[in-house]
Order: sequence, then structure tokens, then C-alpha cells
Amino acid sequence: MQLARHGATASGGVDRQALSAAEIAAWREVIAWGRNAGLTPYTDAAGNLFLRLEGRDPDAAPVLTGSHLDSQPSGGKFDGVYGVLAGLEAVQALRDAHVALRRPIEVVAWMNEEGSRFAPGMMGSAAFTGAASLERFLPIRDADGTSVAEALGELRTAFPEVASRPLRRDVASYVEAHIEQGPILEREGYVIGVVTGIQGKRTFRVTVHGEEAHAGTASRHERKDALLAAVRMINALDSVMQAGGDDVKFTVGRLDVTPNAPSVVAGGAVFSIDLRHVDSSRLAALGDRIVPVCTANAGPCRVDVVELTTAMSLAFPESMRELIRRSADALGIPARDILSSAGHDARFLHGICATGMIFVPCANGISHNPKESAKPDDLAAGARVLVSVLETLANA
Amino acid sequence: MQLARHGATASGGVDRQALSAAEIAAWREVIAWGRNAGLTPYTDAAGNLFLRLEGRDPDAAPVLTGSHLDSQPSGGKFDGVYGVLAGLEAVQALRDAHVALRRPIEVVAWMNEEGSRFAPGMMGSAAFTGAASLERFLPIRDADGTSVAEALGELRTAFPEVASRPLRRDVASYVEAHIEQGPILEREGYVIGVVTGIQGKRTFRVTVHGEEAHAGTASRHERKDALLAAVRMINALDSVMQAGGDDVKFTVGRLDVTPNAPSVVAGGAVFSIDLRHVDSSRLAALGDRIVPVCTANAGPCRVDVVELTTAMSLAFPESMRELIRRSADALGIPARDILSSAGHDARFLHGICATGMIFVPCANGISHNPKESAKPDDLAAGARVLVSVLETLANA
Repeated sequence: MQLARHGATASGGVDRQALSAAEIAAWREVIAWGRNAGLTPYTDAAGNLFLRLEGRDPDAAPVLTGSHLDSQPSGGKFDGVYGVLAGLEAVQALRDAHVALRRPIEVVAWMNEEGSRFAPGMMGSAAFTGAASLERFLPIRDADGTSVAEALGELRTAFPEVASRPLRRDVASYVEAHIEQGPILEREGYVIGVVTGIQGKRTFRVTVHGEEAHAGTASRHERKDALLAAVRMINALDSVMQAGGDDVKFTVGRLDVTPNAPSVVAGGAVFSIDLRHVDSSRLAALGDRIVPVCTANAGPCRVDVVELTTAMSLAFPESMRELIRRSADALGIPARDILSSAGHDARFLHGICATGMIFVPCANGISHNPKESAKPDDLAAGARVLVSVLETLANA
Repeated sequence: MQLARHGATASGGVDRQALSAAEIAAWREVIAWGRNAGLTPYTDAAGNLFLRLEGRDPDAAPVLTGSHLDSQPSGGKFDGVYGVLAGLEAVQALRDAHVALRRPIEVVAWMNEEGSRFAPGMMGSAAFTGAASLERFLPIRDADGTSVAEALGELRTAFPEVASRPLRRDVASYVEAHIEQGPILEREGYVIGVVTGIQGKRTFRVTVHGEEAHAGTASRHERKDALLAAVRMINALDSVMQAGGDDVKFTVGRLDVTPNAPSVVAGGAVFSIDLRHVDSSRLAALGDRIVPVCTANAGPCRVDVVELTTAMSLAFPESMRELIRRSADALGIPARDILSSAGHDARFLHGICATGMIFVPCANGISHNPKESAKPDDLAAGARVLVSVLETLANA
């Protein structure tokens, strides 16, 4: 609730964009809490924040836990923040209880997970893990023309006392706690979700080129109606995806028409496709239908299909899932396996170390919304499981 | 070309909005030309401009000819302007040649035909003929917040020397010359189009109410996808209209999605329908299919359909068409019958007096576009036919 003041909106939600003044204020508060708990803050060239608790062996690769502090423009108080604060709470508990730890533990807040000020999202974890080069992100600009490079410069200026470490470093393991962003745990009465993996996603931009014409004079056979062609494509794609069953998540959420005037036959139409499936082979096969279906339904128009992101479904290692499950069982907290339908920084960490995620319920499954909420008891339960998991990992 | 300087755009076109400074400048120039030709300017409460040539019987109802001086935002030099200048030229020729005329002839420029600054269009002719009340238009505002009433006040202030007459007056007949805005005359080698009538039009706004949801988590059966419902409606409507044949002009030119984000299932969609057909009974029947087809394809969403305009197809009286055809034949100018697919002020004049229209070819049928063009010889031929028609009408 205290962090939610930074970027608070009139509707009771949070608008805390990556590298903004509001996020800098949130950093300042989190760093102060970390120092009070005996943690040392570090950053890196990608603007990630680390709060380090030393272990017995300072040269051992650290265990990382955390999430992010940025939000969607009409976001809530829990998405991301919970993972950072649960990590801080867990590490503080380990230290207060003088638990012996071989490895250092670092609480991390990744830069720009949401991707709403600067697209794409998950920039910090991508650069940290080498999934993408930081140089690729630096020139990207927000709506006001500020680049990632400039915004990172402002962050460095705001925290001259926080040492910067090399970008890529060895990591022993990573655990991310997060609200579920779905209704399953709440509905079924579980408090912990042992995340089995992250649903894959392919996104596309489809551009239809037609020809503007007068709605009153051009006859059907003379028209190259881009909106009508887009409608046929979407309709045909929906039939294909529907045949794939209820597990296929097919969304056309954005459609822009040119010139978008009632009495002008559309000269252009651009629409987005967001396709997700648990099973990577199904995701690949269904995604590969998009170009032929669009082409077959273009009629007299021309169509270009660009694939923007390709993220296959992934499964977290059974060892991490087992560790989280056992920790919850030992504490008597009801847990069930659950798939993450949304993306997280854990996707990129999975590429470089043993990674797992802990979900806790959120009210009505609502997220990316001022109404986002979660019960204090559930949040505390997640942090208790995290303490137990971190202790094991730090001594592994 | 001289008038096209008022509101000239960088692309070589014209942006001369109704009652704007550019249109006031055009008025000033046209009034000066009219005075030089011995015509007296008048206006009325609806901001229409009349240039009157007296006849032998000053109490006889006048013959009106003209069109409009306003343009689309990226309009051309001919649409509307041609009708006003052909009228001015014709009346000047009649006067110069001392042709005896019983009735007065008035060259008219109707206020706001295009409807692009203030919607709907054809305000001046609607108010003049009583098809709509001027009071209904006065509070309508442009994008900057200026009302029709305020803009009319500015027009009055700019021309204190132009007398204002009562709005509704008896009219003997009306002839409007206009570029075709279609390719038929040019393609078939005709110089005069004897306009048989104006194609009818019904326009609708369809609003689909769905529910926003997360593209990664909401499964198909849980979704109320407004964009997908709109796509199904448009697709089904298109099938119905296609079965009606090539004469059905069915256009969805505008579609706005909310929130229009790639990873959010659309909560709302609003689209336009522009439906036209030569045959009023077909137009009525096809238009009446829209509500049931939209309702049947709404799926889990809710749909509202509002009819915005209903203008049935109309046929100009055979006497006027015959007079125009005979005048062209007598001058040896090749003419053919032609239907107007676009709307004109003549639609409303048709309600109160014998009305006809003369079309001339325009290059490649292009209109509402900076590329709008026409040959001087064709424009002159149209004016010559108009002279002949006006002489007959003024002595009828």
C-alpha cells in the first residue's frame, strides 16, 4: 500500500511506468527498506535493481528472487510489486532468524516488464540473460520521444550511490512470486499455485492493402475493400482456431482502418493477432496457418503478415516445482499445479538457470486494472513458501 | 482556378470548409463577379448566397441554378464550384445577349453541402426547402467548438451590404450543373449526362457491447469479444448484400474498437454502414435486413443499431430531363442518361420545384481528391447547355 502511493491514480490504481519519476520514487523506498534489512543495492547497465544478502561463500553464484516495480497505465497495486516485496520480506526473515546460507540471495526488480512505456516488455531480464542485446533497446523511444538510453541515464543520476555491476552474471537459480492474474486458485480454494510453465505466444501484425473508393459509386466488382478483406481473414482464422478447441487463445484486439470514414471504401486495414497455446507444437502449427488463411481470403487486396514475437511454451524444471510443492505441503498451505497464461521475467531466467514461480490468488482473477486485489493472508502464505524455497536453494 | 486559391492546399487541392474564412473569401470574389455581371446579391438566415438577374416580371417565382462553394478537407477544384460558376457564366451570357426573360434567374451557392465541418451536409438547401428546420442545425458545433449559429453570425458580419431575405421562397425550377464524380461519361465519350435521379441511401451506426478480457487467460467460451462479433455481423451482412447483386452498394468504411490493444479482448466495437441502391424498394428491403442479421450474429455480445439517414432513391421529372436532352442535342453535344450515385442539394430542391441536373465528365471519375480535374471544353459545353435550359425555364 505504501509503494502504491508512487504513481497512484484517481481511480485507486497505479500508473508507474518504467524508469519514470514514480518508479524512481519506488526504487528509493525499496532501497531504503533493503538497507534497513542489511542488504546492499546494486544496479547494472539495463537498469535492474538488486538488493544483496551475502552468503557464507561470497563467490558462489547467487539465488535470485523478485519481479518488477513498473505497471500498466491503469494497473493495480500487486502485479510485479508483490514478487519484489515478498522477496524482500523473505530475505529479511532469513537474516532475522540467522539462518545459515551458503549462497548470496539477491532480491531483484527487473526493468520494464510491462512494456507499456517502452515496447517490448521484459527488457531488463532479456538484457540480463542475454536473450536480447541491451544495445537493441537503447534507441527505443516512448510517446514523448525519450529514449531508453536517456531514461536509464536519469535513473543513474538519481542513484549515484548505488554501484553498477557488469550486466551478465552467473545465477544459481531464480524464483518469482506473483499474483495469479486468473481466477483458478481463488475459485478452487488453493493458496499456492506451483507454476508448471508459461504458455507460449505468437503475435502478428497483418496489413491489408486495398484501394479507397466512393461508397456511392464504386460497384462491388470494382472495389478493393481492405476492411472487408480483413473481416474475411479474421472470420476464417477464427474458424481455424475454433476447430483447435477451447485451449487455443486467439485474439484480434486491435484493428485500424484507413481512412476510417463512413462513406469511403477502406483503402487500408491493419490488425493484430495474439495467439497462445500451452502446447508448443500446437502453437507452432496453428500459427503457421495464419499466412495461408490471410492470403486465401485477401480477395482483390494485397496482404502482408509480420510475426512480431515468437515465444514457445515452456515448462519449469520438475526439481523446482517439487521444491515449491514440498515447501507448501510442509507449511500446510494448500497448493496445486497451475500454468501461467501471461508472460513473466521468469521466461528469460529459465534460459540461464533453474527457475520456478509461486502464484498466489488475486480477487476475481482481475489484473492490469485498478480493481486488482489480494488477501494479506494469501500474500503472507506465498512469502512463507518463498522463505523455505530460498533457504533450500541458497544451501544447494 | 482563381476560386481554388481560397483554401488551396499544398497537394494542389482545396480545403474550403463551410462558413470558414476561405469560403468567405470565395463569397467575396463570386459576389464581385456577380455585381460586374449586373446581378444583385442576397443571403438568408441559412447562409445561402443568391445572385439575382431580374426578369420582366419581378413578382414571378425565380428559376434557380447553382451548387455549393464548400469542399471536403482534401477536396478538389470542381466539386460544387463548377455548378456556381457555370450558373454565373450562363446568366452573364443571357444578359450580354439581351435575351428576353420573363422570370428572374438566381445563381445560388448553398451553405454546407459537404457536411465535413458541420454534419450533416446539405444544411442550406434543407433549411431553404423546409426539408429540415434551420433551428435544428444552429447548435451543431465543429471540432473546434464553433456552432453553426456563431459561424453564420461571422458570415453576416463579413457582408453587411448583402441584404437578407426570408428563408423560404417560391421557386419555379432548379437546375444544378456538377462534375459526374464517376467514370461513365469519360469512358463512353459523352460530354453531357442527363441526370435521371439520385441513388437512395440509408446509413447506420452499429454498436457492439462486449467485455474486456486478458488475451492470455480468458478462454473462448468465457469471452464476449466485441470485435469478433462485429466481424461476424459484417461478414453475414456482406453475404446478404452480395446476394442482392452488383447494384447494391454496401460499405462498412469505419470501424472503431475499444480499447484497441493487441493483448486485450475487445470490450466494444462501433461500425458504420452505408447502403445505397437505385431502387427505393430494394433499398428499403435490404436495409431492413440489417437489424436481424446483426442481432443473429451478436453471439454473447449485445448490439444496438441506429439508422442515421434515410434518403430514398428519387427520379427527376421527365420534363426536365427532356429539356436538358433537347438542349444538348440542339447544340450537337453528345449526351446520355445517367444516375447520380452521390447526393446533391438537388435532392431537397426536388421536393419543392421541378428539378434537374446536368453532369459533365471529370478525369478518371476522381472526386473528393486534390487530383479532381475536368477539361475546359467539357465545362464550357455544360455551361452552354445550361444557358439554353435556363432560357426556356425563365420563359416558361
